[in-house]
Amino acid sequence: MSDNKKWVYLFDEVEEAEKAVGGAWDDVRGLLGGKGANLAEMTRIGLPVPPGFTITTEACIAYQNEGEAFLDKIWDDVLSALHKIEEKTGKKFGDPSNPLLVSVRSGAKFSMPGMMDTILNVGLNDEVAQGMVKLTGDARFVYDAYRRLIQMFGTVVMGIEDEAFEDYLTEVKEKKGVKSDTELTAEDWKQVTEEFKAIFKRETGRDFPQDPLEQLRLATEAVFKSWNSPRAISYRNTAGISHDLGTAVNVVTMVFGNMGDDSGTGVAFTRDPATGEKKLFGDYLINAQGEDVVAGIRTPKPISALKEEMPEVYEQFVDIVEKLEKHYREMQDVEFTIERGKLWMLQTRDGKRTARAAIRIAVEMAEEGLITREQAVMRVTPDQVDMLLHPQFDDKAKDQARSAGRMIAKGINASPGAAVGKVVFDADTAAELGKKGKGEKIVLVRPETKPDDVHGMVAAQGILTSRGGATSHAAVVARQFGIPCVAGAEALSIDLDKRLFTVGDVTVKEGDVISIDGGTGEVFVGEIPTVTPEFEKETYLIKLLSWADEFRRLGVRANADYPRDAARARRYGAEGIGLCRTEHMFFEEERLPIVQKMILAEPGSDEEKAELAKLLPFQRQDFYGPSEAMDGLPLIIRLIDPPLHEFLPSYEELLVEVTELRITGKDPEKLAEKEEMLKAVEELREFNPMLGLRGVRLGIMRPEINKMQVRAIFEAACDFKKNGGDPHVEVMIPVTNAETELAFMRRLLEAEAKAVMEEKGVEVDYMFGTMIELPRAAIIADRMAEYAEFFSYGTNDLTQTTFGISRDDAEGKFLLKYVEEGLLPNNPFQVLDPDGVGYLVRLGVEKGRSTRPDLEVGICGEHGGNPPSVHFCHKAGLNYVSCSPFRVPIARLAAAQAALEEKGVKAK
Amino acid sequence: MSDNKKWVYLFDEVEEAEKAVGGAWDDVRGLLGGKGANLAEMTRIGLPVPPGFTITTEACIAYQNEGEAFLDKIWDDVLSALHKIEEKTGKKFGDPSNPLLVSVRSGAKFSMPGMMDTILNVGLNDEVAQGMVKLTGDARFVYDAYRRLIQMFGTVVMGIEDEAFEDYLTEVKEKKGVKSDTELTAEDWKQVTEEFKAIFKRETGRDFPQDPLEQLRLATEAVFKSWNSPRAISYRNTAGISHDLGTAVNVVTMVFGNMGDDSGTGVAFTRDPATGEKKLFGDYLINAQGEDVVAGIRTPKPISALKEEMPEVYEQFVDIVEKLEKHYREMQDVEFTIERGKLWMLQTRDGKRTARAAIRIAVEMAEEGLITREQAVMRVTPDQVDMLLHPQFDDKAKDQARSAGRMIAKGINASPGAAVGKVVFDADTAAELGKKGKGEKIVLVRPETKPDDVHGMVAAQGILTSRGGATSHAAVVARQFGIPCVAGAEALSIDLDKRLFTVGDVTVKEGDVISIDGGTGEVFVGEIPTVTPEFEKETYLIKLLSWADEFRRLGVRANADYPRDAARARRYGAEGIGLCRTEHMFFEEERLPIVQKMILAEPGSDEEKAELAKLLPFQRQDFYGPSEAMDGLPLIIRLIDPPLHEFLPSYEELLVEVTELRITGKDPEKLAEKEEMLKAVEELREFNPMLGLRGVRLGIMRPEINKMQVRAIFEAACDFKKNGGDPHVEVMIPVTNAETELAFMRRLLEAEAKAVMEEKGVEVDYMFGTMIELPRAAIIADRMAEYAEFFSYGTNDLTQTTFGISRDDAEGKFLLKYVEEGLLPNNPFQVLDPDGVGYLVRLGVEKGRSTRPDLEVGICGEHGGNPPSVHFCHKAGLNYVSCSPFRVPIARLAAAQAALEEKGVKAK
Repeated sequence: MSDNKKWVYLFDEVEEAEKAVGGAWDDVRGLLGGKGANLAEMTRIGLPVPPGFTITTEACIAYQNEGEAFLDKIWDDVLSALHKIEEKTGKKFGDPSNPLLVSVRSGAKFSMPGMMDTILNVGLNDEVAQGMVKLTGDARFVYDAYRRLIQMFGTVVMGIEDEAFEDYLTEVKEKKGVKSDTELTAEDWKQVTEEFKAIFKRETGRDFPQDPLEQLRLATEAVFKSWNSPRAISYRNTAGISHDLGTAVNVVTMVFGNMGDDSGTGVAFTRDPATGEKKLFGDYLINAQGEDVVAGIRTPKPISALKEEMPEVYEQFVDIVEKLEKHYREMQDVEFTIERGKLWMLQTRDGKRTARAAIRIAVEMAEEGLITREQAVMRVTPDQVDMLLHPQFDDKAKDQARSAGRMIAKGINASPGAAVGKVVFDADTAAELGKKGKGEKIVLVRPETKPDDVHGMVAAQGILTSRGGATSHAAVVARQFGIPCVAGAEALSIDLDKRLFTVGDVTVKEGDVISIDGGTGEVFVGEIPTVTPEFEKETYLIKLLSWADEFRRLGVRANADYPRDAARARRYGAEGIGLCRTEHMFFEEERLPIVQKMILAEPGSDEEKAELAKLLPFQRQDFYGPSEAMDGLPLIIRLIDPPLHEFLPSYEELLVEVTELRITGKDPEKLAEKEEMLKAVEELREFNPMLGLRGVRLGIMRPEINKMQVRAIFEAACDFKKNGGDPHVEVMIPVTNAETELAFMRRLLEAEAKAVMEEKGVEVDYMFGTMIELPRAAIIADRMAEYAEFFSYGTNDLTQTTFGISRDDAEGKFLLKYVEEGLLPNNPFQVLDPDGVGYLVRLGVEKGRSTRPDLEVGICGEHGGNPPSVHFCHKAGLNYVSCSPFRVPIARLAAAQAALEEKGVKAK
Repeated sequence: MSDNKKWVYLFDEVEEAEKAVGGAWDDVRGLLGGKGANLAEMTRIGLPVPPGFTITTEACIAYQNEGEAFLDKIWDDVLSALHKIEEKTGKKFGDPSNPLLVSVRSGAKFSMPGMMDTILNVGLNDEVAQGMVKLTGDARFVYDAYRRLIQMFGTVVMGIEDEAFEDYLTEVKEKKGVKSDTELTAEDWKQVTEEFKAIFKRETGRDFPQDPLEQLRLATEAVFKSWNSPRAISYRNTAGISHDLGTAVNVVTMVFGNMGDDSGTGVAFTRDPATGEKKLFGDYLINAQGEDVVAGIRTPKPISALKEEMPEVYEQFVDIVEKLEKHYREMQDVEFTIERGKLWMLQTRDGKRTARAAIRIAVEMAEEGLITREQAVMRVTPDQVDMLLHPQFDDKAKDQARSAGRMIAKGINASPGAAVGKVVFDADTAAELGKKGKGEKIVLVRPETKPDDVHGMVAAQGILTSRGGATSHAAVVARQFGIPCVAGAEALSIDLDKRLFTVGDVTVKEGDVISIDGGTGEVFVGEIPTVTPEFEKETYLIKLLSWADEFRRLGVRANADYPRDAARARRYGAEGIGLCRTEHMFFEEERLPIVQKMILAEPGSDEEKAELAKLLPFQRQDFYGPSEAMDGLPLIIRLIDPPLHEFLPSYEELLVEVTELRITGKDPEKLAEKEEMLKAVEELREFNPMLGLRGVRLGIMRPEINKMQVRAIFEAACDFKKNGGDPHVEVMIPVTNAETELAFMRRLLEAEAKAVMEEKGVEVDYMFGTMIELPRAAIIADRMAEYAEFFSYGTNDLTQTTFGISRDDAEGKFLLKYVEEGLLPNNPFQVLDPDGVGYLVRLGVEKGRSTRPDLEVGICGEHGGNPPSVHFCHKAGLNYVSCSPFRVPIARLAAAQAALEEKGVKAK
């Protein structure tokens, strides 16, 4: 009796289940669990599935609410289902003369750790065992099966520690002088069975239940209880899975692959899960049980060998898996058993695969007509594309290193990819070793990085910092250049003087090799082998992305400062440069002294002009390269952004130097010089540099710098046009918060641009626009748009100011805790905050377009390459996202998925 | 002929002027200028005004557009008006036998510098002069008048340098061996007149015009031209006066006070402009011209003496000024001349007055029934109230000091008031000297101040910094405590080691006395005497504010941390505390070591708890005082706000100390200790502390601190209630940007509050709420209001984040320039930015009240005491503003004015 609700479905009752939930396959999986639903589905399409039934997830939930008493209510339904299986199999549960054995397995909608393991051979007891020995003549097989039931039931259902059983087994093997279970005889197993029953009694205070129905009921209840195991609850919390789903219980007739040479068991994938190649892939063992394949005692044979050994079974199997793939329109991972020449399918599910395989499978299935191109695009995750584009550690080698205790720290996974190299503790050495053809692979290790470390960072294979987070300077630059980076590995105690770092009792000196995984944040001592992909060779990915391009509405540009990055971005599919910064170049060795002199000169003085005149040819050259690389496409160049003190020596270092020189009195001349510099730096340094004299403010206070930059931009563009190129320049003014700033700068700079074009006798296509990176700029966007022909959201700074959080300070100190505690759903520097920052983005778009309907609006913050943020940008009606070259393919995919999602296209 | 438009109005045609503009007096002033309108008005009400006419401001504007030719069009109108004056006076322009002389004066709607000076005696020429000598028998008078005309006309109309005339005059006096003009004879003046004509010809290439009509026309044109003098344009730009107003030209019959002992001239105020007392106040001279009163050659007599000398004239004059005051309902400043016993009124205008007088006059006029109480409230400016509440320098003494070259620098007027004291260069010495009954008056001079300087700041008479702006730490604290402060006086070169500062070649050592004016930013060496007002004695102000309280809708609270400030705030009319900070107290001598130990302890450790337990009784005491002072009124206490590193020693100082100790090797123990502290400070220091680990973030990372504070708050409140008090506690959580933060902290803290109340067995009235000081908090205010019962806008930080501008960095470096260049209308840290910050305030109010209609919303940023910002808060529907105790009266007035303005009440 069960309130008219159907709590139990036989595998051949899938239509009824569908009706009960309203028809959707996803809801059938919700009701029967993934495993149960697939067993039922296989049954429906006529595949050989051992008879069985599923107790629904709804029963599990009802059990959670009502407890043990609930089982009474549904037990008649269970028994009735059991009887039907008896009828189908012609066997009888608990009947020694023709016993039905079953397995009991949990099966929730989503698989998760902490759920109850499978219990095999339920239905065996002393009497049934004797009967089976008679029936099969194989006492070894029977008592091995029986002792397994007691062991599994004891540990899984009754909570006995597994050692209790295993210790005894070890003892027996030692006594017999054998090493493996297979060497034990029927008699041995019978003795083990007896002892296991004794252990069971000792540990639980009760006999091992001889009543098969009691076994079934206890096992069922154990599955239900396991839904609320601490591990399962914790996993669901983390993965965001509802606690109200419940798990189903699958009761399946046992079939045995270990009944002789006409029996066997195996697992297979319908395509190669490593490469995606369309080719049956798997292993099997003759005369073996499923566990034996996993245990690795005997080496399994490749599935192709079955063609020789059992041609008919093989043929049937091939037919079945083809049918399955067509049915599910997805690569399948199946388990099968051959019992005395008869093939049984025990499980099918979507197969796990590598990123590369996922892409190939999606593309080939679309080409085979199994799925649409839209579906193919929806099936590949942006993370999979990301994984394909960064060097990766060899998984096995990494596992081994982990086991060997070589993993010494874990920081923030700031920029994906694997890096191996010699530890170097300063940027100059890194640049020295990494650049000049010395071919040294190095990893730059610093407490944190600064803009004047960039020359060393780009020369490194990887970057490791002990401070800062996923949007620290190190992280941002690393992602920009596609360099693997682990940031904020706080376990590291770095001693720059001694040129070493320690983690606990491990000491790593300069020159020692380490390996860092920027995708996981792991840090290893020693080398781990890596695998490096090349975009151009990823033909399936290229095809998939070309489809994605057809579906997306959002443009994709790249943030690139150097010609080589611009070129890479274009190869990766960028449709322009969304952000070309102009300040990195200022740090280059031959320029920095000029830049510093220029900074220290009086604004508007002849000296300032003279130094700027020296910088002009450099900058002209800086801008020619990207113009060339982006021939015919838009190129947004941002005028100088950081505060000028970033280009001067560090205040703290100067302070120490001056103090030393003062005390030692050794070099009065140097002291005077350093004191002067210290004074200059002190005048320029700021309490909150992020909110200081930078961007357009600098442009207003020191207009000559911006004028030089605009001159360089237009000289480069005119030269390029004269050389047959097609430049489209967009000059971007950063850190604005009032339309008056834009009006002021634009008047000044457009005049300079026009002067250049007149001098050169060439007209180039250009626009003037602004970053929107401060809340006020978004709020008064209607006024900003009067002077700006384009907006580019600088969501890094916009996030900092909207939240009032400094990214450099927050991630190591409190942001991780915020995400852990659920105070924020994500790190807002990684995933664009739709509520706060997003509000301002939407407001700015709306107000900006109210003034200028054809306003071009994009985003050039870190978020431009983050898939959920790309979705946001699509919905907010932006024209494009701009991200690091390495994330361009990811953004292309995410943009297409956003557009398809809007149209209601689903992956399946 | 003039297109039917009337370009010229006789003084008795004011009704026609009214008709032409539609009746409003303000528009009459617009048409005729202030001077002309008042002359016409005096004529209308029957006062003796010399006949004359006004050429309108419209004519001036038409002249600007059409140039000289325009004068032809209106000249007939001018001549016709002139004829009417001739008729009225019985004199004739240019007729030697009975000549009419006139003055020509500019007169715009608002008086401004750069406009043309008055030209007297227009109509005199050689022939007329001879005629006048015959008529008056006073050749000395006539030729003095004539040479004045040539001199004024030459300089003002023709642009001759005044030296050309004055040099000759000096030469004549030297030759005659006399010192003053009065000693020159008729013959001398005749000779001077001749020579002036020669100078005129030499300098201009033309003869002095003998045609009186040509004189009039050229003078009129000169007035028109002066409207666009560079000085006038620049003034209008600064003062925000439209360039389209134009100036009128007033042509007035000359009357002479220097025609004997029955003649005279004087100026008077209808009330005492210094005190406001209702008593005629002014001076006059017998047998003198207006200029002579100003020149100070003879000492004028008080107006009361006229009662004896010319009783009838005096009586008539008293009648006239009473009539004028009643007519204008405002204290008048009049000019008069007595010509041969006949009184003539030459000008009346609203009289300038001191702040104190303005208040008394407004109050007494309301009590006299001349104006309404609403008008009285509208008439006093908040600045006037401000001036009354801070010690002021004696104006004359300051002028003398300026002339003596004692003003050495000018910084930002950061906190108003005058301060005199000995220079001290560090907070400890300041606290030492200023506090312990030593009665030393000191001025603390620092490059900038920090929170741990507060104990010295509050002990000082004044604060002077060489860095930072109007919202730097020094400025904010100074205003908070009503201490005069000049910030960012960049001319000062401070040498802390040598304990002196220099400005140019002036050196000021510790102990030297200086005087600073926080209202003007001036810095003087030496002492300047001050005048200190007392609120309680300002009975007129107290009455005016009591009226203001009846009219305002907005509540006024105070920001006060200490009981004495709270008490002052209440005396000044505060209706509660809007912000009681809890961190200043942490810096006190006996607590700082405990605070530092607590900071360095492991979060959640027993050590942390032990140190917090030591702080608890201090904090309980901290909160008892303000509770007591605000008995029955709300008291908002903000939980700890600044980052913890602010309580530790400065990183830079430690770095220098450690470097020194390392090199000298003298004290290894101290080195170790300092190194440890350096490491701790390094771990806590931040790139952008303003955006770092502070406020609620600190509460989440180190909840024990907030718990201790809430315990202290509720223990104090419970104790106070037990002692018969009536506490209303509002616990404010700062720096929030997500409702989850509020939910988290409130759950934690309300539990603590309830625990305390249970322990004490007392229930106190309380609320939990939050600062809204980050853009995101305002944007998601609907969600914030789920957990907050009140909002308080922290507009300092909200301005910083909305603009992306650090107040500490911006004001000295670029914000002044922004305001100067018109890039921003105001310093947004002084006047709340209605467009950006104001948008977020309005949005937050609207969204917050959508969730919680009875949400209490206030503002506790610096803007709470700024009148335009108070107007904004009124319009935005806030419940109250909170400001420093010293600004409470200002806020009360401004709030009333905002409410009255909304109702359309005008000052007049």
